[in-house]
Amino acid sequence: MSKYEEIKSYLLENNIDAAFVTTPDNVFYISGFKSDPHERLLGVMIFKEAEPFLICPQMEIPDAKAAGWSYEVIGHQDTEDSMVVLADAIKARGVDPAIFAIEKAHLIVERLESLQQLFPQASYVRLDEKINAMRVIKDETELNKLRKAAELADYAIEVGCKEIAEGKTEIEILTAIENAIQEKGCKMSFETMVLSGPKTASPHGIPGTRKIQKGDMVLFDLGVIYDGYCSDITRTVAFGEPSEAQKDIYNAVLAANTNAIAAVKPGVRAMDLDKIARDVITDAGYGEYFTHRLGHGLGISVHEFPSVTGTNNMTMEAGMVFTIEPGIYKSDVTGVRIEDDVVVTKDGVEVLTKFPKTLTVL
Amino acid sequence: MSKYEEIKSYLLENNIDAAFVTTPDNVFYISGFKSDPHERLLGVMIFKEAEPFLICPQMEIPDAKAAGWSYEVIGHQDTEDSMVVLADAIKARGVDPAIFAIEKAHLIVERLESLQQLFPQASYVRLDEKINAMRVIKDETELNKLRKAAELADYAIEVGCKEIAEGKTEIEILTAIENAIQEKGCKMSFETMVLSGPKTASPHGIPGTRKIQKGDMVLFDLGVIYDGYCSDITRTVAFGEPSEAQKDIYNAVLAANTNAIAAVKPGVRAMDLDKIARDVITDAGYGEYFTHRLGHGLGISVHEFPSVTGTNNMTMEAGMVFTIEPGIYKSDVTGVRIEDDVVVTKDGVEVLTKFPKTLTVL
Repeated sequence: MSKYEEIKSYLLENNIDAAFVTTPDNVFYISGFKSDPHERLLGVMIFKEAEPFLICPQMEIPDAKAAGWSYEVIGHQDTEDSMVVLADAIKARGVDPAIFAIEKAHLIVERLESLQQLFPQASYVRLDEKINAMRVIKDETELNKLRKAAELADYAIEVGCKEIAEGKTEIEILTAIENAIQEKGCKMSFETMVLSGPKTASPHGIPGTRKIQKGDMVLFDLGVIYDGYCSDITRTVAFGEPSEAQKDIYNAVLAANTNAIAAVKPGVRAMDLDKIARDVITDAGYGEYFTHRLGHGLGISVHEFPSVTGTNNMTMEAGMVFTIEPGIYKSDVTGVRIEDDVVVTKDGVEVLTKFPKTLTVL
Repeated sequence: MSKYEEIKSYLLENNIDAAFVTTPDNVFYISGFKSDPHERLLGVMIFKEAEPFLICPQMEIPDAKAAGWSYEVIGHQDTEDSMVVLADAIKARGVDPAIFAIEKAHLIVERLESLQQLFPQASYVRLDEKINAMRVIKDETELNKLRKAAELADYAIEVGCKEIAEGKTEIEILTAIENAIQEKGCKMSFETMVLSGPKTASPHGIPGTRKIQKGDMVLFDLGVIYDGYCSDITRTVAFGEPSEAQKDIYNAVLAANTNAIAAVKPGVRAMDLDKIARDVITDAGYGEYFTHRLGHGLGISVHEFPSVTGTNNMTMEAGMVFTIEPGIYKSDVTGVRIEDDVVVTKDGVEVLTKFPKTLTVL
């Protein structure tokens, strides 16, 4: 069953007249058409009892068709009210939906208000959980893309390590990494992070012109997109012999990472994994410096479900893919984060990212 | 008056109790803090009669403070419901807002529903138009940043032209451009586009491994961010002597571009500018191949107000900044787009992008 047909079945089962999918990554998931519409309207409208359509800016119609969407594509011009174009297309199907399913975690208030004006009788229910439940379990085709994306991420870290040298800037190293990936015909899945020395202690720092010097630790956080699917890896390496305090932090993060990974299997809850990693770090005396969740789901989006937090009681199932990325950020010593991408298998775990995790000293 | 104070005055004048700013670019505009929060909550809450606060993920608090926001910063953890943290912070001010102004073109339905649950008595009005009206007029500090950003875009086109050679791929040329900009310590404002040969006829094409050959036209569409402000330029050049049909299209686009720019001054309407350019292209016989609006506003965002379309009757005022980017996309001949960034001045226009527009033949 195609992704489109699965949603149509869901509408039938739940007696919902129409589903409007607007998150660009979900539009890609269902239609194969990947597009960043900026403020313009992009969506797939699926009906319980009529042919679906994709709506996009007029000029993107050829691309949408080329991407493999075999149903109708409706274009809107910048001079039109795209929500009116949408409503007209719905009415042209002879449909007057009483219940719409919408993505409440994506649709903006303004567009809901437009729908409410155009279909004043309708009620609006959430579609989010259905699509999330579909996307959270990856099929074998998707897993193969994720494996390739992770392989490219490993390669990117390898390139980064080779580039590290006295006096080179973070941006120079970052550029070498991005060039190497572009030469492979791929793009990064988010802004590559190369942070050195004290900057490693800022979990969301910005690479700059700071020059690498002996005694620095260097943190790489990066990912690659392969055929629409994202990887996400972090490695922290030492340039020159690290201090005892730095090694102590590294070892705590590494133990948190490997212990959590070892516990991944069907039936374990996200919060259990977070606790395993957090306990290791707390026991080592760094609890207050692990300031974020353990990980996040990964797939078409670089952040998706499941969220691996201390309060998420979601039970892991085979086919789920997420990151395990404990970190300690102690500004007077160093920041360290070690992040892997893992898949829940029938009886355990497959680790997609394979770059070595014993402390690399360059 | 700071941007924050201007919004506070607006609340006082309109008797609105609180304004919640959530668009990341607007959070930057008001607080100086630039952050991409992904799915996490980021916002500035401004009150008619209390101290404002910024709310962001816990781990970003130091960055928010370092960015210059001198009022309170409230953090939320991944384990918390960030909307409850927000509501608690509002209540801690001793405020129970009866009217909230929200950004309906940004806030997602789910967060509005949370606010409605937490403040069931409150009503919700639009803040969008107020902030848009503020942002659409650039002050001299902003204009200086935009001038610098445009200068860097000119330089990027220059680099791109030098890179064009038989057998080079689009991605190789793109990489050389991005490296040159990174060496200047800057980032691109969107994904750089280098399209060659027949691909120039796809307005939103994707650069790939197609090799440049003699007789190609090459279209560059790119921009650079300077200190938070974006430029956006398009130039189309010929590699080898162009055909008469290609020159004819180029000349029509160039005349549309220059005629529209010559008409920019306070008092002209966006739709007048679109019509001037469109008439030139229609008179040349290519009307059906100019498939998008004439341009878009430019500033902190690469697409902002004013939108330069055939139906926008907004009157131009001094300090407005936007693109003028007519194009013709005729797949059997070539695509051509020529895009400049312009500022409305007291009595006319200042063109920020200065790379030559007479057809460059390489």
